[in-house]
Amino acid sequence: MYEDSSARIVAGLREWIATAPPGAKLPSTRALVAQYAASPVTVQKALRTLVTQGTVESRPGVGTFVRATRVARPHDYGWQTAALGTPVHRAPHLPAPLRSPPNDVIALHSGYPDRELLPERLVRAALTRAARSDAAISRPPAAGLPELQAWFASELGAATTMGTASPAPSDVIIFPGSQSGLSSVFRSVVGAGRPLLIESPTYWGAILAANQVGVRLVPIPSGIHGPDPDDVARAFHRTGARAFYAQPNFANPTGARWSSTVAGRVMDTVRQSGAFLIEDDWAHDFGITADPVPLAARDDGGHVVYLRSLTKSVSPAVRIAGVIARGPARERIHADAQAESMYVSGVLQAAALDVVTQPAWRTSLRTLRRELAPRRDLLARALREHVPTAYVAAVPQGGLNLWVRLPDGTDVARLVRDCETAGVIVASGDEWFPAEPTGPHLRLNYSGPNPGAFPTAARTIAEALERNSGP
Amino acid sequence: MYEDSSARIVAGLREWIATAPPGAKLPSTRALVAQYAASPVTVQKALRTLVTQGTVESRPGVGTFVRATRVARPHDYGWQTAALGTPVHRAPHLPAPLRSPPNDVIALHSGYPDRELLPERLVRAALTRAARSDAAISRPPAAGLPELQAWFASELGAATTMGTASPAPSDVIIFPGSQSGLSSVFRSVVGAGRPLLIESPTYWGAILAANQVGVRLVPIPSGIHGPDPDDVARAFHRTGARAFYAQPNFANPTGARWSSTVAGRVMDTVRQSGAFLIEDDWAHDFGITADPVPLAARDDGGHVVYLRSLTKSVSPAVRIAGVIARGPARERIHADAQAESMYVSGVLQAAALDVVTQPAWRTSLRTLRRELAPRRDLLARALREHVPTAYVAAVPQGGLNLWVRLPDGTDVARLVRDCETAGVIVASGDEWFPAEPTGPHLRLNYSGPNPGAFPTAARTIAEALERNSGP
Repeated sequence: MYEDSSARIVAGLREWIATAPPGAKLPSTRALVAQYAASPVTVQKALRTLVTQGTVESRPGVGTFVRATRVARPHDYGWQTAALGTPVHRAPHLPAPLRSPPNDVIALHSGYPDRELLPERLVRAALTRAARSDAAISRPPAAGLPELQAWFASELGAATTMGTASPAPSDVIIFPGSQSGLSSVFRSVVGAGRPLLIESPTYWGAILAANQVGVRLVPIPSGIHGPDPDDVARAFHRTGARAFYAQPNFANPTGARWSSTVAGRVMDTVRQSGAFLIEDDWAHDFGITADPVPLAARDDGGHVVYLRSLTKSVSPAVRIAGVIARGPARERIHADAQAESMYVSGVLQAAALDVVTQPAWRTSLRTLRRELAPRRDLLARALREHVPTAYVAAVPQGGLNLWVRLPDGTDVARLVRDCETAGVIVASGDEWFPAEPTGPHLRLNYSGPNPGAFPTAARTIAEALERNSGP
Repeated sequence: MYEDSSARIVAGLREWIATAPPGAKLPSTRALVAQYAASPVTVQKALRTLVTQGTVESRPGVGTFVRATRVARPHDYGWQTAALGTPVHRAPHLPAPLRSPPNDVIALHSGYPDRELLPERLVRAALTRAARSDAAISRPPAAGLPELQAWFASELGAATTMGTASPAPSDVIIFPGSQSGLSSVFRSVVGAGRPLLIESPTYWGAILAANQVGVRLVPIPSGIHGPDPDDVARAFHRTGARAFYAQPNFANPTGARWSSTVAGRVMDTVRQSGAFLIEDDWAHDFGITADPVPLAARDDGGHVVYLRSLTKSVSPAVRIAGVIARGPARERIHADAQAESMYVSGVLQAAALDVVTQPAWRTSLRTLRRELAPRRDLLARALREHVPTAYVAAVPQGGLNLWVRLPDGTDVARLVRDCETAGVIVASGDEWFPAEPTGPHLRLNYSGPNPGAFPTAARTIAEALERNSGP
């Protein structure tokens, strides 16, 4: 336990001092030498440590004494408020999807799939292999493990349309999760004080990252087929924005998938505006009845900055995301990533690469898809049956969530509280809006634990809605 | 390999198409059904995919044809320059200490200890245990694993002086490495456009993070006993700064250790200025002939924001740092950390905690200390012997580096190049200055591989210096 025997004596004397009155005289050096079976030099070293720590004071020729302890007092950190000033943006709180619920509730609030949907054995085996490998003890290049860069590039390359050049491995930058990727992209490609078009509603983590960077959000209404391309064109023109953040496939929270026409027209607008599309392909591994084709697969002009994360489909512990960008944008994002976090743990990168290159990974994705469909349908059916006043505009073809419109006038905060009291945790839709919510919504995750409880959860929501419309 | 059989057909046809002329007609559906032993539905699905990808076009009733491929052309991403504008701060390049050198050179440039100095077996065992644990598949709280928070708090608490309250586990925020911690602290506690006092010379990573955040750096000259406390007081008064970034123990690059008097006076100044000391205790585990006592151990008024990293003493793969702060500062740093990276991989946190709570960890630190001393002395002796014109102001009592003043007029960039040509990689001291370098310096790491080559390295530096003073 102790680094050397003087540390042992320090610990022993601190215990003694804790119960001694201020001013008490410590045993003599000779007595301590005997008590601790240590040399006088070691005892003297221990006493010097205690003096340095302010615990005792030494009066030469007299002895060593316990110092008068100050009375413990509560601190007032008011001076910090003056030093810090007011925050630049609203102080973020703990968003609902990150809350860790108690065990005995039905949790529909989370942003993550239940662990039984994850390739747990693959992940454990990959981490174990990584622990034995060179990755456990070495430092990877700043942009990422070359093989992992190559994998992210090949995944996008496989979807690339004819005549479009596939991305190169060097176009990929590895991040410790997509939140870090978003922050870095917003800093590099947009910048504080500058405008960013953003779907509304959209992922709260993107809103949070954008607010932190201090970019000015320009919301673009987005429905089940994506945004109106004319809205996008007008917003680019009106604001001078040079970037648009979007989730074209199975958007969080709405589940929307842009039609091919919308995708083509938005890409045209982006090109004509000399702008970037920041494509967050968060649900790439969560297609249910449709395969997501990234818009980035249609672009080799450097207009799309593409994000893909493995955190949700591999494991929350394998916090790895890849950003693909070309040209100066790639350089700027890479420089920012380096300034922000230097490099990403090689163990996590090696484990991620191991998982996604196993044949069993494909099997695992197929299983996931097979399991998501009935869960989604079960929750949708339970809502239709028990909560007829809740409206689901579209049952999504992929993703993890249902986006539920509640009756006008619903007090969502109260509804969320009432559900929680009754043992069901749901997320208020308010967190997904970059500006004022356009109506009362819930986002319900159908990939959490215990889908058998979905009907019970739906009944609980119905009862809470009932109370909500009361006095 | 393939997610379904239509993907197999897509892959096969892409190969066929790659060598087919534009306009070539694809085999009929019937032929493909036979060739791939697949159903007509599957073949149709494959063809639709190819149409979507723009590879082929379908003429109903006629057949499917290879589209005219566009000629591959190099891209000009010039439009991005207009969209991105000029960078807010100088574009960071790859700093010397992060370079991965070829195997056959003598590397004195790195910021990391050689792997043979690291507790490799402990790290591998800890990662393997973490792979088996719940941490491999679950999401830890945003601020960190509670047990790891408690460990960081107890480490600082053990040094806390009498009458000063020890930090609480909840005062600790876990980061994916100290670079992320620095970025977050600079954003939260200082902010873009506001002044930050900083030692000069000091750690290049801190300068990089500060530049990225856009804080205004106010350099404070710092020598082998630390800065002049009067300089610090004047700079606080003159600039209105509310924070001072420093490495009071075994500073990187100088190895300086603040005297107790300097430490006390700087703390007084910080308190009187209603300011923060951002204490980067990077070398906590690298004491050689002295034990570092953090200044944070003298403070419970929330004036010290304390950083400690495990990356350099545990493993570069275990990218874990702890930041300890109290009061509103702690809240603001935590909010920033969450917006920036959401949470840190639980596997890395569990592995870090495992390593540092093993009794063998203390043994490993003692071994490290025993091995650093002769390496440091060997390099210092080699320099004295072979490079008499190089001046080392003080052989440090801890840390990993010697800070070497070269003769006036030395062209450091040329010297570094010449050394590299001769097989010795050294880091120019220029990167450690927040403003213009005050003289030609090298930072030489004595904890890298192959200390037996130190005399050879010194002779190489001497020869390069010789050429440097030539025409």
